Amino acid sequence: MNQTKVVLSEQEIPRQWYNIIADLPQPMPPVLHPGTKQPIGPDDLAPLFPMELIKQEVSADPWIEIPEPIVEIYRLWRPSPLYRAKRLEQALDTPAKIYYKYEGVSPAGSHKPNTAIAQAYYNKQAGVKRITTETGAGQWGSALSLACNFFGIECKVYMVKISYQQKPYRKSMIRAWGADIVASPSTDTNAGRKVLEQYPDSPGSLGIAISEAVEDAATRDDTKYSLGSVLNHVLMHQTVIGLEAKQQMEIAGDYPDVVIGCVGGGSNFAGLVFPFLKDKFAGQPLRAVAVEPTSCPTLTRGPYAYDFGDEAQMTPLVAMYTLGHNFVPPPIHAGGLRYHGMAPLISHLVRLKIIEAVAYQQLEIFKSGVSFARAEGIIPAPESNHAVHAAIVEALKAKESGQSKTILFNLSGHGHFDMASYDAYFEGRLVDHALPESDIQNALDLIKNYPPVE
Amino acid sequence: MNQTKVVLSEQEIPRQWYNIIADLPQPMPPVLHPGTKQPIGPDDLAPLFPMELIKQEVSADPWIEIPEPIVEIYRLWRPSPLYRAKRLEQALDTPAKIYYKYEGVSPAGSHKPNTAIAQAYYNKQAGVKRITTETGAGQWGSALSLACNFFGIECKVYMVKISYQQKPYRKSMIRAWGADIVASPSTDTNAGRKVLEQYPDSPGSLGIAISEAVEDAATRDDTKYSLGSVLNHVLMHQTVIGLEAKQQMEIAGDYPDVVIGCVGGGSNFAGLVFPFLKDKFAGQPLRAVAVEPTSCPTLTRGPYAYDFGDEAQMTPLVAMYTLGHNFVPPPIHAGGLRYHGMAPLISHLVRLKIIEAVAYQQLEIFKSGVSFARAEGIIPAPESNHAVHAAIVEALKAKESGQSKTILFNLSGHGHFDMASYDAYFEGRLVDHALPESDIQNALDLIKNYPPVE
Repeated sequence: MNQTKVVLSEQEIPRQWYNIIADLPQPMPPVLHPGTKQPIGPDDLAPLFPMELIKQEVSADPWIEIPEPIVEIYRLWRPSPLYRAKRLEQALDTPAKIYYKYEGVSPAGSHKPNTAIAQAYYNKQAGVKRITTETGAGQWGSALSLACNFFGIECKVYMVKISYQQKPYRKSMIRAWGADIVASPSTDTNAGRKVLEQYPDSPGSLGIAISEAVEDAATRDDTKYSLGSVLNHVLMHQTVIGLEAKQQMEIAGDYPDVVIGCVGGGSNFAGLVFPFLKDKFAGQPLRAVAVEPTSCPTLTRGPYAYDFGDEAQMTPLVAMYTLGHNFVPPPIHAGGLRYHGMAPLISHLVRLKIIEAVAYQQLEIFKSGVSFARAEGIIPAPESNHAVHAAIVEALKAKESGQSKTILFNLSGHGHFDMASYDAYFEGRLVDHALPESDIQNALDLIKNYPPVE
Repeated sequence: MNQTKVVLSEQEIPRQWYNIIADLPQPMPPVLHPGTKQPIGPDDLAPLFPMELIKQEVSADPWIEIPEPIVEIYRLWRPSPLYRAKRLEQALDTPAKIYYKYEGVSPAGSHKPNTAIAQAYYNKQAGVKRITTETGAGQWGSALSLACNFFGIECKVYMVKISYQQKPYRKSMIRAWGADIVASPSTDTNAGRKVLEQYPDSPGSLGIAISEAVEDAATRDDTKYSLGSVLNHVLMHQTVIGLEAKQQMEIAGDYPDVVIGCVGGGSNFAGLVFPFLKDKFAGQPLRAVAVEPTSCPTLTRGPYAYDFGDEAQMTPLVAMYTLGHNFVPPPIHAGGLRYHGMAPLISHLVRLKIIEAVAYQQLEIFKSGVSFARAEGIIPAPESNHAVHAAIVEALKAKESGQSKTILFNLSGHGHFDMASYDAYFEGRLVDHALPESDIQNALDLIKNYPPVE
């Protein structure tokens, strides 16, 4: 294409989400009750989620209508632009064509509001007055605050204490949208108090923050809980990204040979890639590459097994690639990718070899992120740098082989609230982390306690 | 209009800048040499600027062609969206229609790259290898770094030391785009060393930083100097904002009764408003409102007189509204508006009563900024909050009078790098500043030293 970017009109915002479950070549393993080890039903999830979201979680319909009040808010930043990275191609001197979908245009600066708005809407419909959640780096906490603000729902965010201290401006953003935020472990819950009694100086963890948010929601009638990734319905809400990108690639007169996204819980990857997988299921040749950090190599080194979604073992058991629910990843700057497990849907597709997985170190992904920023202007979030790097690797492979290739990746967010990590990179304070085999052995030992995946 | 926003295609990026000088009802007073007090010629500016920019500074042509390499970079974020602030209108329960043009979509997060790209281009054409500039809050320094990076020009930014310490992430951004940045006063220039000898702990000022950047450029053959506001050509480069907005208002089927922008040096205001003033000169009824901080009330309390553009008296004498070149504004958070003078073009138009001026305190503008963020999602820069507040004031006046009214304002940038100021607001640490009459008297005394404006 001759343009730098393809912009769509508001009329072209997708009106349905794509539910990949309807098109899976093999069904997913069931989710198990942690006590009975039997498949759970919708009622088991009712204390935490409104019924409409639970229905979406287990739906087999290929398309789910997006309610108008959600579209009305999507209009504030959607459709997001699709770019042809011409300056990056030039800098790399590659015959490959590189496209990226840019989700950093949302008010929260990432793809996260696509599901936050939907979740807040369904909670509002169900009469929910208050929502709790946890947040690590703050992308999800800020997105949910924005969403709850729009629907007049109270929001309480438990933010991992070390991030609360290191990323003070995500906290300010959450406050600007009127949400309540507390550093976790906090004195507001039993779970938090218990940790503080034993470790008064605890820096917190995502596992502890989840326990606090879940306890808060489970013990109050007016309150539900919300998760920013991993679950089927969350991934489905993100498919507006890929559905728009397909329209935009068509306008550009092109179709990707490879689609790329970074993965932590998996939602931005799924959002871009699932709508393209629909074509792959129908015979379209297409590679889908999930990029994770070497220091949290769930898909590339973890076993596929039943495990808990949280450290405190409060969630159901799900079949997924996992490093064990007690795995604590090294303190890399891509905080959004530091999750021990992976979305069951993505795990399933990797196991079926429909999705490839690859892992990169943080020094190389930051190097690529800076190259991208200097070529394209936009400074990516550290998480997105993983996708940037994988796209550059593909483009350089194309250069080596002399073959043109069309690459599409998801630039899931900007790095305006992550500049401290760029400082660390420029000042040589950033290091790579080698993960010892004993960490993987821990996962293998742990999962022996749970039923094997059929 | 039924849409939330009007987006244009890349083909609709303006191909010419609008030069309001061609349409002025009265000519501007001449710029004077500080020594001879006689009108200066192009050659007097040659040590600091490339000739093409000097030509633009004094041009009387109504339209100046935008070179293709500049448009090519504008495509990365232009055309910027025009929004109808429907949620804000609802929250205010006003019959007024509120529109805003959003310039925060640029990689640097403000309107500043519109001129930075142009200036870097013309310097590159003239064979300039290196550009120096000063920056206060960092918006301008980051925009020029981005622009120099695209054209392979070295860039050195002298950043006011107090800002360098308080806004570390603007510095990181400048570094990400490969520019050199130093806290001012620095040991790199005579001007800086002189200050440091006398005041080793000096927090710096814009005046000192300008002196350093100008000295650096004037003493090196390969180096020129660049300014982010005030000058005619800088304001002209910004007219792409208003030229796009006029197309977008037409698509929306509307025309503003009042156009609003915040003013420090005046460039974002001029960018939106000048193309609309062309219609006003032709008889279109239209109010244009320039909004400044009460603590730096150049247009509303300063005299119109010849004064220097910088504290160190290195610039020519220009006729403008001024608080005196040695005026030090209180430390408000809208750092971009803390300038003692005002663009000569805007000053001239205020004097001719073509533009109105109004001043607001920082507590009220932050209150409006938070209302805006909660209604529209986007968190504005503190500078932009002045325009937001003035738009809300106009909308509430319309509510009171029961008359509909179409309001358009420039949302010149986002507040992602200014969250500390929102923290101060939420925590009650933000205060209003009353400016004593003695400060105004100082300006009146000072300007007696210079020729009166004819």
